[in-house]
Amino acid sequence: MEMYAPSIDRALLAGLVSRFLAEDIGTGDVTTSVMVPADAFASAAVVFRTPGVVAGLPAVVEVYRQLSAEVTVMESAHEGDVMEAGAVAAVVQGPARPILTGERVALNLLQRLSGIATLTRRYVEAVEGTGARIADTRKTTPGLRALEKYAVAVGGGRNHRMGLYDAVMIKDNHIAAAGSIAEAVARARRAIPHTMTITVECDRLDQVDEALEAGADILLLDNMTDDMRAEAASRCRGRAVAEASGGITLETARRIAETGVQVLSVGALTHSAAALDIGMDFHT
Amino acid sequence: MEMYAPSIDRALLAGLVSRFLAEDIGTGDVTTSVMVPADAFASAAVVFRTPGVVAGLPAVVEVYRQLSAEVTVMESAHEGDVMEAGAVAAVVQGPARPILTGERVALNLLQRLSGIATLTRRYVEAVEGTGARIADTRKTTPGLRALEKYAVAVGGGRNHRMGLYDAVMIKDNHIAAAGSIAEAVARARRAIPHTMTITVECDRLDQVDEALEAGADILLLDNMTDDMRAEAASRCRGRAVAEASGGITLETARRIAETGVQVLSVGALTHSAAALDIGMDFHT
Amino acid sequence: MEMYAPSIDRALLAGLVSRFLAEDIGTGDVTTSVMVPADAFASAAVVFRTPGVVAGLPAVVEVYRQLSAEVTVMESAHEGDVMEAGAVAAVVQGPARPILTGERVALNLLQRLSGIATLTRRYVEAVEGTGARIADTRKTTPGLRALEKYAVAVGGGRNHRMGLYDAVMIKDNHIAAAGSIAEAVARARRAIPHTMTITVECDRLDQVDEALEAGADILLLDNMTDDMRAEAASRCRGRAVAEASGGITLETARRIAETGVQVLSVGALTHSAAALDIGMDFHT
Amino acid sequence: MEMYAPSIDRALLAGLVSRFLAEDIGTGDVTTSVMVPADAFASAAVVFRTPGVVAGLPAVVEVYRQLSAEVTVMESAHEGDVMEAGAVAAVVQGPARPILTGERVALNLLQRLSGIATLTRRYVEAVEGTGARIADTRKTTPGLRALEKYAVAVGGGRNHRMGLYDAVMIKDNHIAAAGSIAEAVARARRAIPHTMTITVECDRLDQVDEALEAGADILLLDNMTDDMRAEAASRCRGRAVAEASGGITLETARRIAETGVQVLSVGALTHSAAALDIGMDFHT
Amino acid sequence: MEMYAPSIDRALLAGLVSRFLAEDIGTGDVTTSVMVPADAFASAAVVFRTPGVVAGLPAVVEVYRQLSAEVTVMESAHEGDVMEAGAVAAVVQGPARPILTGERVALNLLQRLSGIATLTRRYVEAVEGTGARIADTRKTTPGLRALEKYAVAVGGGRNHRMGLYDAVMIKDNHIAAAGSIAEAVARARRAIPHTMTITVECDRLDQVDEALEAGADILLLDNMTDDMRAEAASRCRGRAVAEASGGITLETARRIAETGVQVLSVGALTHSAAALDIGMDFHT
Amino acid sequence: MEMYAPSIDRALLAGLVSRFLAEDIGTGDVTTSVMVPADAFASAAVVFRTPGVVAGLPAVVEVYRQLSAEVTVMESAHEGDVMEAGAVAAVVQGPARPILTGERVALNLLQRLSGIATLTRRYVEAVEGTGARIADTRKTTPGLRALEKYAVAVGGGRNHRMGLYDAVMIKDNHIAAAGSIAEAVARARRAIPHTMTITVECDRLDQVDEALEAGADILLLDNMTDDMRAEAASRCRGRAVAEASGGITLETARRIAETGVQVLSVGALTHSAAALDIGMDFHT
Repeated sequence: MEMYAPSIDRALLAGLVSRFLAEDIGTGDVTTSVMVPADAFASAAVVFRTPGVVAGLPAVVEVYRQLSAEVTVMESAHEGDVMEAGAVAAVVQGPARPILTGERVALNLLQRLSGIATLTRRYVEAVEGTGARIADTRKTTPGLRALEKYAVAVGGGRNHRMGLYDAVMIKDNHIAAAGSIAEAVARARRAIPHTMTITVECDRLDQVDEALEAGADILLLDNMTDDMRAEAASRCRGRAVAEASGGITLETARRIAETGVQVLSVGALTHSAAALDIGMDFHT
Repeated sequence: MEMYAPSIDRALLAGLVSRFLAEDIGTGDVTTSVMVPADAFASAAVVFRTPGVVAGLPAVVEVYRQLSAEVTVMESAHEGDVMEAGAVAAVVQGPARPILTGERVALNLLQRLSGIATLTRRYVEAVEGTGARIADTRKTTPGLRALEKYAVAVGGGRNHRMGLYDAVMIKDNHIAAAGSIAEAVARARRAIPHTMTITVECDRLDQVDEALEAGADILLLDNMTDDMRAEAASRCRGRAVAEASGGITLETARRIAETGVQVLSVGALTHSAAALDIGMDFHT
Repeated sequence: MEMYAPSIDRALLAGLVSRFLAEDIGTGDVTTSVMVPADAFASAAVVFRTPGVVAGLPAVVEVYRQLSAEVTVMESAHEGDVMEAGAVAAVVQGPARPILTGERVALNLLQRLSGIATLTRRYVEAVEGTGARIADTRKTTPGLRALEKYAVAVGGGRNHRMGLYDAVMIKDNHIAAAGSIAEAVARARRAIPHTMTITVECDRLDQVDEALEAGADILLLDNMTDDMRAEAASRCRGRAVAEASGGITLETARRIAETGVQVLSVGALTHSAAALDIGMDFHT
Repeated sequence: MEMYAPSIDRALLAGLVSRFLAEDIGTGDVTTSVMVPADAFASAAVVFRTPGVVAGLPAVVEVYRQLSAEVTVMESAHEGDVMEAGAVAAVVQGPARPILTGERVALNLLQRLSGIATLTRRYVEAVEGTGARIADTRKTTPGLRALEKYAVAVGGGRNHRMGLYDAVMIKDNHIAAAGSIAEAVARARRAIPHTMTITVECDRLDQVDEALEAGADILLLDNMTDDMRAEAASRCRGRAVAEASGGITLETARRIAETGVQVLSVGALTHSAAALDIGMDFHT
Repeated sequence: MEMYAPSIDRALLAGLVSRFLAEDIGTGDVTTSVMVPADAFASAAVVFRTPGVVAGLPAVVEVYRQLSAEVTVMESAHEGDVMEAGAVAAVVQGPARPILTGERVALNLLQRLSGIATLTRRYVEAVEGTGARIADTRKTTPGLRALEKYAVAVGGGRNHRMGLYDAVMIKDNHIAAAGSIAEAVARARRAIPHTMTITVECDRLDQVDEALEAGADILLLDNMTDDMRAEAASRCRGRAVAEASGGITLETARRIAETGVQVLSVGALTHSAAALDIGMDFHT
Repeated sequence: MEMYAPSIDRALLAGLVSRFLAEDIGTGDVTTSVMVPADAFASAAVVFRTPGVVAGLPAVVEVYRQLSAEVTVMESAHEGDVMEAGAVAAVVQGPARPILTGERVALNLLQRLSGIATLTRRYVEAVEGTGARIADTRKTTPGLRALEKYAVAVGGGRNHRMGLYDAVMIKDNHIAAAGSIAEAVARARRAIPHTMTITVECDRLDQVDEALEAGADILLLDNMTDDMRAEAASRCRGRAVAEASGGITLETARRIAETGVQVLSVGALTHSAAALDIGMDFHT
């Protein structure tokens, strides 16, 4: 059993949720403050209307932590659990006003993150047994990267670099600028922290050889045929990580994973996952 | 010809883009600062890989305005234009470093907003000629509401309330708390600005009558059958706006619009639009 | 009995108070940290030196919540209560240091908001029985709009739109630009959310007819004579809200209200209310 | 001639104006963006409707600097000038949209600051020739202290300490805690920067002697009779600054100034100045 | 015994620590979240590896207050205590994750502040018995001024002005601009708050006389010989504070103090103090 | 020749400088606004009073960019240049007010960063020819990490990880928690991005073997004897980076570098570098 579970930094989550609440609440929730008595009590179940993988409960908890010290969120599922339609992920109890005021932000986050975790899980299952891992990309929703990458991890996927600041990615124009892959890698290695890795994007097999020779840590095999991927992955073995990208769908994922690449990076995990249908059912 | 065009508040856009850039760039774009000479020049075309409605060019302009005073973004399309695959929406020119550094954030925004505008346009076309308008909801991506609602407007849709602060929406629990629709509406009217409207959610026709009697401005007809919608819309005529919600898809939209409701509010516009495939092609 | 009471959004209040404290305290309250022992205890009564309507106690509570977990604020009046000279609105108890440090900010807020509530109450009483409501405007102190509009509500007044974002107000130049009131209203209606209202400013009776014809929701009767106001209000009945503005004083308010207008909007409520004289009496 | 003129720190002003604009504009100025063509041009005069001292033009300039690079504000008066009714303080020219959007915030600031400068000027004139200076207090509008103190200076008044952080003010409870004025002053002197001054609040003449003996820099003569003030001021001469506070009105100011005190600190300058009536006249 | 102890404003400290933690933690402490079980418990002693004066424990407490409600910091020393090598300043107990995550920021602050307090103490001891005080300057680490000045106070030093805003300092170019010291001081006195002091920088004895004549509060004797300092200090006695600056080292401090100056301001206290070696020892 | 030069992210630098200026200027630079005419012009040379490596000129440029559009900073040295005593690094010209107001913040930054670059250069020279690189640590001044790491790079040093978020560092307690180095590394590898590296801290040679076996990317040889370092470095060759830490001084650095380790990480570079003596000489 694995004791590690994906986690989100508390302060970062708090900062985000605070902005999201301000965006929706603005100068105040008019309806609730006018219609709901200050002493009314409510209990609401967070219900999955369609099946999927739950991700984002810590965000729901944070929404209500910020709105009221008196609301409690009792989680009835763990992050990453597969929920059936009708299953209850959490029960929210306490003063009715903050529960109603926070409903939309809580659901918007939970629906989006669960949508990403669910899609990720399908990709992960597609490649199961091949040893390949499914990874995300930087094609995330602006402002939500940390949360979306967390959802990918909850879905069983793996994270790629967080941004432009924590890894080097050498592409065509860089190689052109440097003159050769060898020179590009050497130049990067001289400048970056020794704790940082270098990825080289390769379209052709001769580039694969050059990049391996240059000591790249990771080879991003971009839009190759499966035969090329297999050959490239084979050459990488023991020398660098082989990562496939481009044209990866739920249909093609397994075939590509079977070429021997270690990582499939899939932009769709974050840029095209539909929100899951999750609602709050109030009990009186 | 209409001289009005949807617009985004400049300061609000600047604040968002500044956060989005910080999220991706962090302490610095290592690859670019190491691999690209400070005096290298680049020119890149923003190209639609699949057809769709363009939305978000002001965000692209803002990304580059913040990164460098020397980068120019020449727009070759207007917001709302229908682009064919291969069409160029803009050309970005100037120092290569900021152009590369901003590429991902610019595209992430453009892809998402164009995806929303494109989906909206399809809904708008589905109801064309019926007189009904397609409206968004509060089911937006946390942090991106203003941008996403702008994209809906670019796609020909109409905006709903911006948040909890600018309109009243009376639902079941409110009615239960107040005792009746009449009392609920009266209570709201006594408390809110005279510039603010009241919407009452109705599931049944007797509620429609009660809400009209109470003087509601808008009736949200939730999950009704088409016959009920038609009857409700007919009763609303000249007295209140009839808005349909629930179960609206590209397939059902026209049929629902033909019941005579004036507004169809569709959460999917923002919570489930896939990002459009848009890239940057660099020329050397 | 009305269970609705005006309220301020907690997060918004917390953000404001945090800035206000920083403005006064800066790098630290030198006098208190030097002169008052850390373990000294204090008890202070918040006393009205002149009579008036109390508004702003939640701000006092928030000031002390931020300064110390050990200070308690016991309110001895409700927001909106009429206080006589010498009456105690609250008692603040706990460590002397934070009580002294927060005194000025707490009083500055309470004095200003109570001043606004008191002036509002006088206007409300002036029009009592006429059915007209007293409303505020956007002529508020920059940075304090939400608090000042809250104080107006506490004083028995009603709020107008919060800002430029939540309602349309069509004035002369807009009408000139559009060509006619009819065209101006139509243009606005096509673009704004169906949850948003349109106000048209009218100086003459023919404009009143035009605006009603165009379907405006509210008519702002600006600087009209009482006879004109009466005629305009009569034409508006059942079709739109008639709102009077311009030249409204405590002396003229009743006369204007009796013309049949439903709303009197009064800039003076917020731009010219003097602070009420309220102090803190310390007991040793 | 004096070349010194009161000034406001640019960055501080920019930060404030940015918040004030956000408060009013929120997600966007709906009316303007819908009704005013993007290419419309406007010219507006900032006109004093009642006479007074102008203060706050830098804030007007900053409002428009933030809203548009194309709007110009031509000042036709200097800060501190006495304006007659009908006089034009500035002309604003450029694209109509930002001019209309910024109008209210610009006027709200100018009206309030000019109101403070005007009231200050009246106090300054009341004591003219006595050698006494009129000073403000910490009874300012939360969030506007720097601007309001600037307006006092523009009106010819003088500033007191900015906040709790830049000077020591010893009051009754401090003296009680320390045991004596001598001990209180000594304790403060041991702890504070040598660049910081100590004020002691005195109600009685024996306290005046004690405070002078203790080496206080300033004596705050609180709520004394004129005879006491005269005696206290006489004892202070050459040893400390004598400052009067409490019960100072436009009627009593001169009499109090003639007692020989050097400073009259007047809370009303900022907490009770009514906004001046200033408007924008648009020319087509 | 003195009951006054230096203190840091809570809100200011909280704001700083929050930024410092974000700087180090970013999107999350990868190592800890991956390697340390969520339910692991830890206890760590904050140990001085070299002797010195402890300063900064409130910052350590704040670091852990922000990271977890379950971590307790038990202080075993008071701010300002002289610690021997091996002495324990505090024990941190609670969940292992936040303790490890906060370790570096807590130590970085404690090491730097204790370094400053230790160096200050050495200067204070060097001048002991002379009656002179050791003061800091504005040569502090950008962003840390309030904390570093607090550390100077903990070390027994005194603070100078906090920034450009709370005292006047007249230098050569100002005197040149004004024409004379007399004119410069008079001009300042006319403009500044009566609670603010004026320092004049003097290089020569004739300037000392001029500054005293002009009524300066403090004379900054810059880079004078000891004889000049003695003469200047003698002339200042009873009229102004004599402050020496320039060329003050641990070797020269006593000699300079013995010239009779009241204050020695030493930039090295903050710009050149080495961090003290302090670590955390974990117990399992 | 190397075309790469260390760089600081513009937006990050702007954000920091803005805070630093606010810290020093607060509500305004009283002396300058009172003493210096608005139209006075100044020219000042940034002069090294002691020799050293210049680092931080971009910060000086940013300080003045924020204070005034009319001040120009002409750099007469490149970042990383060795300056002799008396050498001029830049000339600042323009309106005297902003030049004086920004002087202290500009110098505080330049002195500190140049101090770090100078110390780094000495370490780099100490190990010259050995092939070892000098690296920084996380022992930086809170709030200044990005700037200080930039200064290390300017001085010829190399950066280590930026914070807790961009690399894994396994220490004793982690190994204890996991049971073995093998298990600890495996656990990390399963969870982190494939673009991230793993460092294992080793005190003993058997740990070195275990860590290499486990596939660690970097071995941090902590407080080893030179013989142990040599042996460890030899075992690492071709398999992992060998990094020495602990007890590295200018005296021991070369000896340690000659053991064959590739990286020497030195906390003193940032936690104990004294500020360089740099001043501004004004010309009239």
